[in-house]
Amino acid sequence: MLRVAIVGYGNLGRGVEKELLRRKDAQIVGIFTRREAKTLETQGSKAYHINDLENFIGKIDVCVLCGGSAYDLPQQTPSIAKHFNVVDSYDNHALIQSHQKAVNQSAKKTTAIVSVGWDPGLFSLQRIYIETILGVESQTFWGEGISQGHSDALRGIEGVIDAIQITQPRKEAMTKVRQGEHDILDKHKRLAYVVTNRKDLDVLDDEIKNMPNYFKGYETEVTFLSQEELDARFPNMPHGGFVIGSDGASQMEFSLKLDSNPNFTAQVLVAYAYACFNMNQANIKGAYTIFDVAPRHLASGRYDIL
Amino acid sequence: MLRVAIVGYGNLGRGVEKELLRRKDAQIVGIFTRREAKTLETQGSKAYHINDLENFIGKIDVCVLCGGSAYDLPQQTPSIAKHFNVVDSYDNHALIQSHQKAVNQSAKKTTAIVSVGWDPGLFSLQRIYIETILGVESQTFWGEGISQGHSDALRGIEGVIDAIQITQPRKEAMTKVRQGEHDILDKHKRLAYVVTNRKDLDVLDDEIKNMPNYFKGYETEVTFLSQEELDARFPNMPHGGFVIGSDGASQMEFSLKLDSNPNFTAQVLVAYAYACFNMNQANIKGAYTIFDVAPRHLASGRYDIL
Repeated sequence: MLRVAIVGYGNLGRGVEKELLRRKDAQIVGIFTRREAKTLETQGSKAYHINDLENFIGKIDVCVLCGGSAYDLPQQTPSIAKHFNVVDSYDNHALIQSHQKAVNQSAKKTTAIVSVGWDPGLFSLQRIYIETILGVESQTFWGEGISQGHSDALRGIEGVIDAIQITQPRKEAMTKVRQGEHDILDKHKRLAYVVTNRKDLDVLDDEIKNMPNYFKGYETEVTFLSQEELDARFPNMPHGGFVIGSDGASQMEFSLKLDSNPNFTAQVLVAYAYACFNMNQANIKGAYTIFDVAPRHLASGRYDIL
Repeated sequence: MLRVAIVGYGNLGRGVEKELLRRKDAQIVGIFTRREAKTLETQGSKAYHINDLENFIGKIDVCVLCGGSAYDLPQQTPSIAKHFNVVDSYDNHALIQSHQKAVNQSAKKTTAIVSVGWDPGLFSLQRIYIETILGVESQTFWGEGISQGHSDALRGIEGVIDAIQITQPRKEAMTKVRQGEHDILDKHKRLAYVVTNRKDLDVLDDEIKNMPNYFKGYETEVTFLSQEELDARFPNMPHGGFVIGSDGASQMEFSLKLDSNPNFTAQVLVAYAYACFNMNQANIKGAYTIFDVAPRHLASGRYDIL
């Protein structure tokens, strides 16, 4: 029985709880939150205030950290790694190395795996396999799925009540990459779904398509719809993507198709929670990324699928 | 410069030489063969008799072993691992663990990675990622590609001059797996391309389709053609396949499409030759499988693709 604590209870924390409840060899010690614990509506697990975590030293095998990358994890991961094995999904690509170093400072007796998820995470693994085996650059395509940054940008426009931006890989670009081309500029198509009270829809359409840094220069399609239609269309935060490499003779391709982006990230975190504990048991201490984790640690003794 | 020796010079050895000649940070010390060295037509590398290998102790970083799994590697890998870091492509799934143990006995000062390739190998990696993340069984589909065993079986039939058996994944079966079904029995279609001097083609067609253990009970298509047509149709030993996992909500899929099966196996061996040397430099000695190799060892310092 792997004894797991969940720290943070947004979409990701809920996904981790859901996944752990499916696993027969894991046990949820508790969900730790900054909110008032008794207000938390969990799927059955006990909730505690985050300040109570230190009372559980010795009673938790791994903490799965489900806070945000911008404000929570840069402080939380190093702090909690002092006393507990941890996995987090820190996803700011440019700062992963310095985040790892900061966590490594405090993970003296513990094991930490940072930046676990699908990108960074599984997609990173596929990129390293493709690039070292074929000796060419890999290409990553995202979608079809919701882009949070672009959705926020749409919501910032005057008269826009709600909006979702769906990113879609361009099929022609994927075909070129599969054939071994490497300089592909325009890989994605952007679909903007917009709820608005404005009447000048043509002007708004134009305004969106010409937003610098977001839509200008990209193939963009704008659809206006009602709030009800928007809510019905994207209930589950679907996402996915492709990592493709080809040297013209050998083609490697990995893809994900996800009903729920946070639920799948949660599944990856849970798998690596086992790896984290197994590494700690093997006396491998300090902070690591997914690149440092030998696949064996995910499931020891699996010669049957080798 | 990684100093590499190639041991054995069939299709696989030739593929390894070809791949190493593309790599700017590798150097081929020599090709070692049981044949008379001066008869070897290499792509430019020096050839030596295999008995000369011991004269190169200290001058080779990794030996890439390109012998066969049935007769060569069970003796060669343990023997050569005494003095050299080695990678091999031992592919008898059921005996990998005992092969690893035998090699481990002699790899006291060296590092060995056994059973490297795409299956066992890359497909094994995808299976362990899928099964530990989704908590479901993965399904492997092979093809479209040549099945050596089935081709040999066809060639054993009286009056068959030459034959190639192509294995093709059944699309309906792949769709079911993607939707989260796990008990898929009939995953492949078999295409038999047969050169014969027999006149009773209907009888032969029937004979093939009813061969026990090979074609009986499987969807099989038989095509009769001339030797010239056969040679023109499959010049390069193409192959490929899919590893798919789905729990109904999250779908993971990896695929390969290969112009040349041995050339791609060679590319994987070369990538893991670097990993083998890097592990040895990190003082990780003994015999390992691909499951034991942290991706980091394939290419250190690659934070850019994390």
